[in-house]
Amino acid sequence: MNEYCLAVYRTYDDKADFAKKAQGIAIGLTVGSWTDLPEAQKATMEKHLGQVVSVDVYERPGEDRYADIAIAYPDVNFSRDLPALLVTVFGKLSMDGRIKLIDLRFSNTFLGAFPGPKFGLAGVRELLNVKDRPLLMSIFKSVIGHDLQGLKDQFYQQALGGVDLIKDDEILFENPLTPLERRVEVCMEAARKAEAETGQKLLYAVNLTGPTSSLASQAKKAIQAGANALLFNVLAYGFDTLHELAADPEISVPIAAHPAMAGAMYPSPHYGIAPSVLLGKLMRLAGADLVLFPSPYGSVVMPKEENMAIKHALLTENLIQDYVYANHELSQADLQLKPSVPVPSAGIHPGLVPWILRDFGPDVVVNAGGGIHGHPMGTAAGGRAFKQAIDAALSGETLENYAHQHQYAELSAAIQAWGVKQ
Amino acid sequence: MNEYCLAVYRTYDDKADFAKKAQGIAIGLTVGSWTDLPEAQKATMEKHLGQVVSVDVYERPGEDRYADIAIAYPDVNFSRDLPALLVTVFGKLSMDGRIKLIDLRFSNTFLGAFPGPKFGLAGVRELLNVKDRPLLMSIFKSVIGHDLQGLKDQFYQQALGGVDLIKDDEILFENPLTPLERRVEVCMEAARKAEAETGQKLLYAVNLTGPTSSLASQAKKAIQAGANALLFNVLAYGFDTLHELAADPEISVPIAAHPAMAGAMYPSPHYGIAPSVLLGKLMRLAGADLVLFPSPYGSVVMPKEENMAIKHALLTENLIQDYVYANHELSQADLQLKPSVPVPSAGIHPGLVPWILRDFGPDVVVNAGGGIHGHPMGTAAGGRAFKQAIDAALSGETLENYAHQHQYAELSAAIQAWGVKQ
Repeated sequence: MNEYCLAVYRTYDDKADFAKKAQGIAIGLTVGSWTDLPEAQKATMEKHLGQVVSVDVYERPGEDRYADIAIAYPDVNFSRDLPALLVTVFGKLSMDGRIKLIDLRFSNTFLGAFPGPKFGLAGVRELLNVKDRPLLMSIFKSVIGHDLQGLKDQFYQQALGGVDLIKDDEILFENPLTPLERRVEVCMEAARKAEAETGQKLLYAVNLTGPTSSLASQAKKAIQAGANALLFNVLAYGFDTLHELAADPEISVPIAAHPAMAGAMYPSPHYGIAPSVLLGKLMRLAGADLVLFPSPYGSVVMPKEENMAIKHALLTENLIQDYVYANHELSQADLQLKPSVPVPSAGIHPGLVPWILRDFGPDVVVNAGGGIHGHPMGTAAGGRAFKQAIDAALSGETLENYAHQHQYAELSAAIQAWGVKQ
Repeated sequence: MNEYCLAVYRTYDDKADFAKKAQGIAIGLTVGSWTDLPEAQKATMEKHLGQVVSVDVYERPGEDRYADIAIAYPDVNFSRDLPALLVTVFGKLSMDGRIKLIDLRFSNTFLGAFPGPKFGLAGVRELLNVKDRPLLMSIFKSVIGHDLQGLKDQFYQQALGGVDLIKDDEILFENPLTPLERRVEVCMEAARKAEAETGQKLLYAVNLTGPTSSLASQAKKAIQAGANALLFNVLAYGFDTLHELAADPEISVPIAAHPAMAGAMYPSPHYGIAPSVLLGKLMRLAGADLVLFPSPYGSVVMPKEENMAIKHALLTENLIQDYVYANHELSQADLQLKPSVPVPSAGIHPGLVPWILRDFGPDVVVNAGGGIHGHPMGTAAGGRAFKQAIDAALSGETLENYAHQHQYAELSAAIQAWGVKQ
């Protein structure tokens, strides 16, 4: 039985015949030509032919005319890797006028080639021994130009605040001041020291950088040195590289995907790839255990509905295409990829925590940099203020009341510094 | 002495203080904070600090207000690879409002880490034994669902037309009907047979696909089987993967870079990466010997000025940043990368050849698919019509007159079919 992956495009045109355009895509990106083929050849070529699944045209006064076009691409046309799928569905087509890839769904068989996140939500929770509550991640304040002692001190102060994860800055590359293995050693030493005080386990996502062909061995070196998580700039290397790292059994720690460069592709309404695909489905399929993306709350913003679509893609969607040719040979349950943990980021302070929990629920990482280091009482207090804010939000109490009731000086100071989003 | 790579951004904002924004970028993407640093720390951190080189604000009635901002990033902050540079200059920043990366220039030292194209323009000309004239490339008509004999027949007809290069379709992946090595064998056999008739050497750019970690070995298998060129979907894998392939001494054939997925990044005025950077400088730096991109003439169009900027980046720019801190330690001549050959593509027919030569000069590949296979007298005649059109354009004669003078039935038929762009 034929299997298909499905791509949905939003394409803008003042007067195009969108049904014809859809046919042109379905044929042009698969068999090349169809109507002029001899009947005998059509019979052998049909299994390679793309199928137009739907064409929905939107014409509203005062708005640009557009259509959402869904095309099913036969699996038989491409190998089971993301470069092949992406080049098929949005290679040449990406350059053909105002067109954006807004959804992707996968066949059972295609999906079956991807183990997905090695840890996922449950695995990360288990490593941290945190069952239900949202997790808290902290980012170094500044890293470039600092030496090992400087990073270790920063790390220790963050860890003392009780955060669950600490991540490198994504612009910290291999460098003589804080080389990968030494950085891991000193930071994990600080983590152990802090854990003795806080009782809190901690993951340190060290930035995996350098030549593509050395990434796996760099990752293993970092793990050998004690790293218990990795940060990776996926889009600078391609989804397939993440997939190969995530599928490597020797890379035995969670991978946090950084969205660096994603803004070159998702914000335009007319071009590129929707956030739910770029930072949602593709990240999860390729095996990211945690995925960072700009939140709707802070300094670098993404519309809330796009954040919610990412959340859905990471946590709950099964990613299987069920529009055409429903596939019953494999149980969908068998193929369900582990959920990736959403990490809405940038400009987060404790006063935003109730909003994050309201929008994302408990399965989220609250991720802060300036909102921790900029705390009036210092970095460790900054972490504690966030933990208190999380407790408050989970209790259903307002931050102000909760801080008052529990006499939490850290949370009170944070509220005074940044306010509470109403 | 400090060395710097330079990035230029165009950023839109109705009322922003662009000078302040530039400072924010220069500090935020390097040392993180500056004004609140103690003086002693400033002294050690200064070599890591980004520098604002220029801020040019454009305010015109009825147009969006924008600024072009040039920032110099110290080499000491990043490793000598393209993921590190790109994540530094356009990682987080790509997500920060309406901002597009419109230029990149490199320090001597950074550039020195990149051998660039192994063959380049002169090398490709030498392989083909074609000194001065523009080259002609042909694309298979359709490949998916065809077997080896089908591809071989198509290849032979194209080769008979006297084309210099034949490329796989970028959506032809590893598949049971036409597996890589067998495909190379049968097509190169067809190439030899055609060469015996035409006397014309020919490069076959076979599509290099599959898992990232297997690309180098796949390339070597293809070369072992007789491949004399490779096609590569660079943007699906990342520039570093191209760089590693191009720098591999055992990959001893030219690499043609396909622009698949580029349209997700270059067309928006407000977001992404300018074509001259994405398909020009970065492709050349990473080692593409030939670079395909949408022409301004055909069906998939890019504005002509952007095509000319790509041409300049591929053929003539030295790519070295000379805005700040001029570097005299290395001779620029020593570091000049070989030029990459521009291949303006899509919708090209013989009637466009004089325009291509006028805009690009002789150092260009004329690349056609439908304009060859759709020729009324068949595929081989389609190739001959293009060769005749190239001769005509080089002679300075109009296509119509030249076809008439030489009684070129193929060119005449092409003119009748597609016309001549005036």
